[in-house]
Amino acid sequence: MQPLTGLKVIDLTQVLSGPYCTMVLGDMGAEVIKVEKFPSGDDTRRIGGFEDNYNFNMVNRNKKGLQVNLTMEKGREIIYRLVEKADVFIENFRPGVAKKLGVDYETLKKHNSQLIYCSISGYGQTGPYCQKGGYDIMAQGMSGIMSMTGETDGRPVKVGIALHDTAAAVTALYHILLAYIYKLKSGEGQYIDISLVESGLAWTVWEAASLFSKGEIAEPNGTRHRMIAPYQGFRTKNGYILVGAANQKLWELFCKHVVEKEEWITDPRFITGNDRVQNVNELEHLIEDVFSEETSEIWLQKLESVGIPCGPIHTYAEALQNKQILSREMVIEGKHPRGGMMKMLGFPGKMSKTPAQLRSPAPLLGQHNDEILKELHYSEAEIRQLKEESII
Amino acid sequence: MQPLTGLKVIDLTQVLSGPYCTMVLGDMGAEVIKVEKFPSGDDTRRIGGFEDNYNFNMVNRNKKGLQVNLTMEKGREIIYRLVEKADVFIENFRPGVAKKLGVDYETLKKHNSQLIYCSISGYGQTGPYCQKGGYDIMAQGMSGIMSMTGETDGRPVKVGIALHDTAAAVTALYHILLAYIYKLKSGEGQYIDISLVESGLAWTVWEAASLFSKGEIAEPNGTRHRMIAPYQGFRTKNGYILVGAANQKLWELFCKHVVEKEEWITDPRFITGNDRVQNVNELEHLIEDVFSEETSEIWLQKLESVGIPCGPIHTYAEALQNKQILSREMVIEGKHPRGGMMKMLGFPGKMSKTPAQLRSPAPLLGQHNDEILKELHYSEAEIRQLKEESII
Repeated sequence: MQPLTGLKVIDLTQVLSGPYCTMVLGDMGAEVIKVEKFPSGDDTRRIGGFEDNYNFNMVNRNKKGLQVNLTMEKGREIIYRLVEKADVFIENFRPGVAKKLGVDYETLKKHNSQLIYCSISGYGQTGPYCQKGGYDIMAQGMSGIMSMTGETDGRPVKVGIALHDTAAAVTALYHILLAYIYKLKSGEGQYIDISLVESGLAWTVWEAASLFSKGEIAEPNGTRHRMIAPYQGFRTKNGYILVGAANQKLWELFCKHVVEKEEWITDPRFITGNDRVQNVNELEHLIEDVFSEETSEIWLQKLESVGIPCGPIHTYAEALQNKQILSREMVIEGKHPRGGMMKMLGFPGKMSKTPAQLRSPAPLLGQHNDEILKELHYSEAEIRQLKEESII
Repeated sequence: MQPLTGLKVIDLTQVLSGPYCTMVLGDMGAEVIKVEKFPSGDDTRRIGGFEDNYNFNMVNRNKKGLQVNLTMEKGREIIYRLVEKADVFIENFRPGVAKKLGVDYETLKKHNSQLIYCSISGYGQTGPYCQKGGYDIMAQGMSGIMSMTGETDGRPVKVGIALHDTAAAVTALYHILLAYIYKLKSGEGQYIDISLVESGLAWTVWEAASLFSKGEIAEPNGTRHRMIAPYQGFRTKNGYILVGAANQKLWELFCKHVVEKEEWITDPRFITGNDRVQNVNELEHLIEDVFSEETSEIWLQKLESVGIPCGPIHTYAEALQNKQILSREMVIEGKHPRGGMMKMLGFPGKMSKTPAQLRSPAPLLGQHNDEILKELHYSEAEIRQLKEESII
């Protein structure tokens, strides 16, 4: 048994935030029915120009696929029948669209009063911006996270991953689990409202502390720490590495045994931690002059040998070939019905009794139509009729 | 009743990843006992140089404070008594330290066979790197996320927030909830192993899809989208804004009604979406020439009036003054026993029946020592004795 064995999830989400959330529910044992719009399905099926593409398959494993035309009454009827037996319903339409389609909380609650209903949107279901469409990049701009990422005095840069999409995914996920725990105890369902902007914003705790306590606005500063130096990325002969000489003892070890510049310890620019922060531009310059003479591998060995926190700045390809990451099964393989074997990212949490499991690949569009409708007691004739009417 | 009312959590974590996780457990009703080391407490109490500082108070609300000297047998005895009545134990020591202190899973399981025990570490509890200390910045370098963030051909830059710390926090959180659900159903506890590196790495799904399917390595490109242009940040007269003209129709609207440069539509450099991606440097230059004539506010109005996705790039101060963010109660206030009223970030999930609640401020160091020990049936004389022996 997995933790969510027996949990039934009706998933009307697409692209990344919702699908990532329901993927984890599926990884942990839930029965997830992914409902895709007729005729084109999840927009992600089209990224890159072919139907069953890699992006889609990465975040839709462990789900069954149902394709339904929600603009037709008979299509909605399928959803209502599904909802009667479900625990969780999740959607990431622009606010208002679920109501237009007849699959909003007020409507579905009539079909299942114990339903847990989760909405994911750019800005949330209330407030002056709630009708705006919101994508990950706009959320990065709204939350201020983009403005604190980048080079000092440089242009703003985005976080390299879809930060707010994944933040919304896991925020929706843990709220659904909380609501399920409450339902197990009380028998009651409820409505959950998750936004991309707030999900990422909630993680800016250090930055909020600085703003609220001292009025300091977090600004970009490359890879540098705001209060410690040297604690940042440095260029070497063949790339960049991270060095964190976080206190006076480590700084002196660094001067003596890593760069072999004992004179820096008594250099008036670098005497105290605060001096080094004030003169970090010069310090960076001097360190990179020395670091340019050897490769990253050699500097990391020297740093490790004297116990100074350090690490590589992997390219993404290096990250996924790293022996630690591979030993932790962060790259797994599964069979896809069309593509053959495909690689996927593994599971980030290791549970001793109830590990996440790859039970099935992502569904083809409408792959489980017949199976799901039969479970809902549609007859073969009715199913044929639904197909003829372009409902499924 | 809140979802986690009745859940007892013994929290031996410090700094950010663990405390953020247990803060959310507390926000949702759990009884969290934060155990801090004798004599100095959570390292975060010292950031900025004074004991009860803002960073600490931001992520430790809704917890009780117990201070214990874990290097002494009598200190460990307190933990064992706490664990007997607890559901969850969580720690973020470097792997191996919990065992040295006598609070590892094998030991605590003997005191409570149903315990859910969660460890958070930099690289995980297994594998060739497991003994290394890992901080957020090293995790950003390891996972490859740093290498895909920044300007094209620029230096790597870090994500502006402690991405891997918060990733580990919410990954630990949802696994603890999963284990609790399993415990509610089966009566069994288990061990959970969470790493900073993997928690963030698990979110690189689009980047992994590109690597696995096409061998493409995600690289930094400022704020630009890899497959669409113009879809990025642009400089205006007084700052930067985001524009997402994601298809041909939006591009033509942009040319005609926003920048009023209809000739760009037929410019051979910008005919198709692919042309615009190929010539994005020139396109950015031309657009910024026009955008430099007016303020961000005016450009955003024009873009919105024709329905082109767009948004501001807020400074962090602007983000926390934004009317949408304030209307969603993302800035809340609570009373701290020493500091008076203090602002905090609000709750990112809105649950209709069981909302998160601010029940108490962060504890002072050892604030609930007496209360907690009395509940464990220590007598007043024993408590006095423990204080004399510097155990609490």
